[in-house]
This record gives sequence, C-alpha cells and structure tokens, in this order.
Amino acid sequence: MKRIPDKVVGRLAQYRRLLAEHLPKDKRSVFSHELASMMQITASQVRRDLMHVGSYGVPRHGYDVAELIARINALLDLGKSRIALVGIGNLGRALIAFLNSRRGGLCISAAFDSDPTKTGRLQGGVPCHPMESLAEVVGREGIRIAVLAVPAPTAQEVADNLVRAGVRGIVNFAPVPLRVPVGIALEEIDVTCALEKVAYFTTQRVRGEREGQT
Amino acid sequence: MKRIPDKVVGRLAQYRRLLAEHLPKDKRSVFSHELASMMQITASQVRRDLMHVGSYGVPRHGYDVAELIARINALLDLGKSRIALVGIGNLGRALIAFLNSRRGGLCISAAFDSDPTKTGRLQGGVPCHPMESLAEVVGREGIRIAVLAVPAPTAQEVADNLVRAGVRGIVNFAPVPLRVPVGIALEEIDVTCALEKVAYFTTQRVRGEREGQT
Repeated sequence: MKRIPDKVVGRLAQYRRLLAEHLPKDKRSVFSHELASMMQITASQVRRDLMHVGSYGVPRHGYDVAELIARINALLDLGKSRIALVGIGNLGRALIAFLNSRRGGLCISAAFDSDPTKTGRLQGGVPCHPMESLAEVVGREGIRIAVLAVPAPTAQEVADNLVRAGVRGIVNFAPVPLRVPVGIALEEIDVTCALEKVAYFTTQRVRGEREGQT
Repeated sequence: MKRIPDKVVGRLAQYRRLLAEHLPKDKRSVFSHELASMMQITASQVRRDLMHVGSYGVPRHGYDVAELIARINALLDLGKSRIALVGIGNLGRALIAFLNSRRGGLCISAAFDSDPTKTGRLQGGVPCHPMESLAEVVGREGIRIAVLAVPAPTAQEVADNLVRAGVRGIVNFAPVPLRVPVGIALEEIDVTCALEKVAYFTTQRVRGEREGQT
C-alpha cells in the first residue's frame, strides 16, 4: 500500500471530525471549498487529500458525506486500539475523560503511575497499575500505543521501557523531546512551546500596534 | 525588526528549555551538535537558528550556555504575560498547575467558566470568573493571550469574544479548527488528531511486521 504522508493522515482525521461532528445533520453532500474554508486551507489541497482515500467529488454535487466518512474510516480505523497512559495527574485524567467519552476506535485501556496511592484501582474507569507492571501489562494486553503524561525528567526512561515492552507509537506530552528508535511513530505535543510562540508573536503585534499609533 | 519564522521561534523556546533544565548544572558551554542531538535536528539547523538571537559558536568551545539563555530570554521574554484560561475542566486545571508552577514570564492570571459552581473563587490559585465577565476582566487586566480549553461546540464563539475583548493570541485545545482574523496568533493543539496519526502509523507498522514474518 502506498504510504500516505504524515500531514495528509492528520488532515484526514480532521476532515472526518468536521464531517461527523460539525456539519448540519441533514447535509448529505459537501464541496471541497466548504471543507477548505472550515480547515483554512485551499480547496485543491482538500481534493488532493481526499484522493488518498479514493474519493473524487462530483461537479455541482461535491462529495457524498456518508461515503466520505466511510472511506476515511476504512483507512484510519483501527478496530479497537488499546492505548496505555503513563502518568495520572490532571493532564492524564483530562485525557482519559476526553478520549474514553468519545465513540471511535481509540480508548485508554491501561494507566500507569509511580504513586502507590493512585495504583491498584480505577482512574476514570481505567485500571491503574504500578510502573513496575508496565512491561507485563503492555505485553499481556497487546498494547501498541502509549500516551506519556509524566514529568520531563522521567519521560525518556518511560519511553525506553514502553518501546522495549512492544509499544510502536507514542504521543508525548512531557515537556522534553524524546529519542525513539527508527520506525516508532512519535508525536510531541509541546504546550509550553505553543504558548511561548503565541506569546512572542502577540507581543510583536501589540508592540507594532503601539508604534503604529505614535 | 526582522520577522523570525514561526518554527524558529518554537525551536528557540525548546533550546532555552534544554539549556536551562536538561544540561548538567556545571556545564558552561555547549556545541551545536549536542543541541542538535537532543532535538533530533541537524547541527547546521541549530547554528542557523541561533544566529537569529545573534549567537555564533566559537570553534572548539561552542556556545556559552549562560549567554545563550540570556540572548533567547531577551528575544522571547515578555515581562509578565498575563494569560486568560477559558474552561476549567481537568485539562484547564492541568494547564494551571503546569504553567503556574514554572518560573518564567507566562502565567495564567484569570480563568473563566460557564459553570457557576466553579466561578467566584480560586481555581488552582487563579480567580475564576463567569463567562459574562470575560470582556470586562480581559480589558481591565490588559490580557492579550488566551488558552481555550472548552468543548468544541462553544470554542468559536468564545474565540470571537476573546478577540473582540482585545486578545491577540490564542492557544486552542478545543477539538475544532478556529477561524480568527488576520494578525491574531493561533496555535492549535489537536490531541485527537495526534493520537489518530500515531495510531495509523503504528497499525501500518505492526501489519508490516506481521506480513514480514509470514
């Protein structure tokens, strides 16, 4: 199968969400320029992306919404993908509440924490295990995806343990870049960095406005 | 002042964090290849980035760590940047706990929620106001940056209100793309999309491994 670029996969996930959750319920078809406007990209980008799932819009009709969702599902859907979450702080709890309330194939099925007051019971409906059980639980449950919500100093060690246990994809929320072997899928979500970027450009703009006024 | 590209600003924030938090305490100088290896980019990229803050490494010595941090501070630091947080769920609480425990110029100083049981008191040390007070509080405190941690259906309306109230930069955690006027800095942190990407590439790889075995 042809490898679909990283960014296209990301946008396909976004199209699916827009189609499934943000269109009027009675809307049966959608034009590429409508999706483009919701995503703030070009219509030709939308059309190129949708060709990856074999969808070609019809002139004056656009894309059939149900068919398009089904085609994206067929590409992205994963049966039940069990996810391990490491780190049960506020962020970990937010992730469980958010992901496990959604329908869809992604579900946190095991949590881990080093704090013995948090382990040995359910956290947001998910069994929370001690860190020492990580390899055993991940192996037994056939978990291939993990979300890291631990403090920066322990993140690399935890990631190494996850990969050794069989995990092949990691979403990292710890504020430190991780090193993973070739072939391991990694997405890093860097909250501080996003805020510092926004703060920098905001300050530049506010300064510019002030200078423009004087 | 020359406009520094978005991605470079993001990496400068990451270099600063690595320099300040992830080097041995007694390390006085650092080579571009060391930073490159921590960030998993090329050393020449590091050197180009650091030129933006006027830093040029010295052969056989590298960059002076303290000076480099000071130069990045001078570019990125914002005095005290007050941030508004909209939405006090688990994610909102995690963001307050994380950001307000760090030293540095970014600090959530006002929170907003539509739930009256959450407003009129402190949330993680931050005063939480009702949504109706948003324009007044943002105006009075001169807040220019906001973090959105609200459910998707209300996110666009809240963003519109924030911009009308004077906010110039938004970090969006709501799982829906926002439309903001030209000139408003926007970073979208899409947790579902990151997970779906990782899940897709992980599944591809696990399938590939299985096929390779047969």
